[in-house]
Amino acid sequence: MRGFRIVVAAHGELADAFVSAATLICGVLHDIHAVGLRPDDSPESFSDRLAEVVAGDEPILILTDLVGGTPHNVALILARRLPAATVISGVNLAVLVEAATSTDALDAATVDRLVALGRSALSDSSSLAASRGP
Amino acid sequence: MRGFRIVVAAHGELADAFVSAATLICGVLHDIHAVGLRPDDSPESFSDRLAEVVAGDEPILILTDLVGGTPHNVALILARRLPAATVISGVNLAVLVEAATSTDALDAATVDRLVALGRSALSDSSSLAASRGP
Repeated sequence: MRGFRIVVAAHGELADAFVSAATLICGVLHDIHAVGLRPDDSPESFSDRLAEVVAGDEPILILTDLVGGTPHNVALILARRLPAATVISGVNLAVLVEAATSTDALDAATVDRLVALGRSALSDSSSLAASRGP
Repeated sequence: MRGFRIVVAAHGELADAFVSAATLICGVLHDIHAVGLRPDDSPESFSDRLAEVVAGDEPILILTDLVGGTPHNVALILARRLPAATVISGVNLAVLVEAATSTDALDAATVDRLVALGRSALSDSSSLAASRGP
């Protein structure tokens, strides 16, 4: 049983697509939400929707798509007001799947592990694909 | 003008959502395609669709969502048969936006730069969000 909630905040359909891709891989997932920035959103309207989802005192992991983008900026502002929120930017599917299936507490060690795992999952596989030798 | 094509291969709607999120940020993008693994796909049916999109002799960057997943495995197999294909796994939006707006050749230095940029974009922003100190 995971000890924290997860919210993916991202541009357009990306947040929903991350959650549905993780569901395709892991089966039904609980306490995972997606909040997407719509083309007609203002930062304020997006913030209102995200604030509703992240509200509460329980530990929460907010995964954002891009540093500097509105979903990330708004998530940071909201996280400052929450007692136990962690924001990881640059989400990839490896981070989400690992977080979704975690049974650890959302402490510094867990966050470091998620970041390290996500980074190592982001790699050049070309050497495996190469048939370009002599 | 970018010197290579880009294909995102991922589970479910994730490939399409990556491309549309990048379009939200960058505007209209050329020579970027998305191939999603549908719930009713077999590896063979997915491979047929991906093969159609990646076919050709031009340099091509294939971005996959998860090492070990069907989109990644199929991409690796297809890339072996292509003369100038690079496969980067664990795609996040930073990698896609950077690749999409690149004007560099798809050489080893560019691939290393994309991986490094994607990894550094994947980070714990909690220290910026923290209000938990005394």
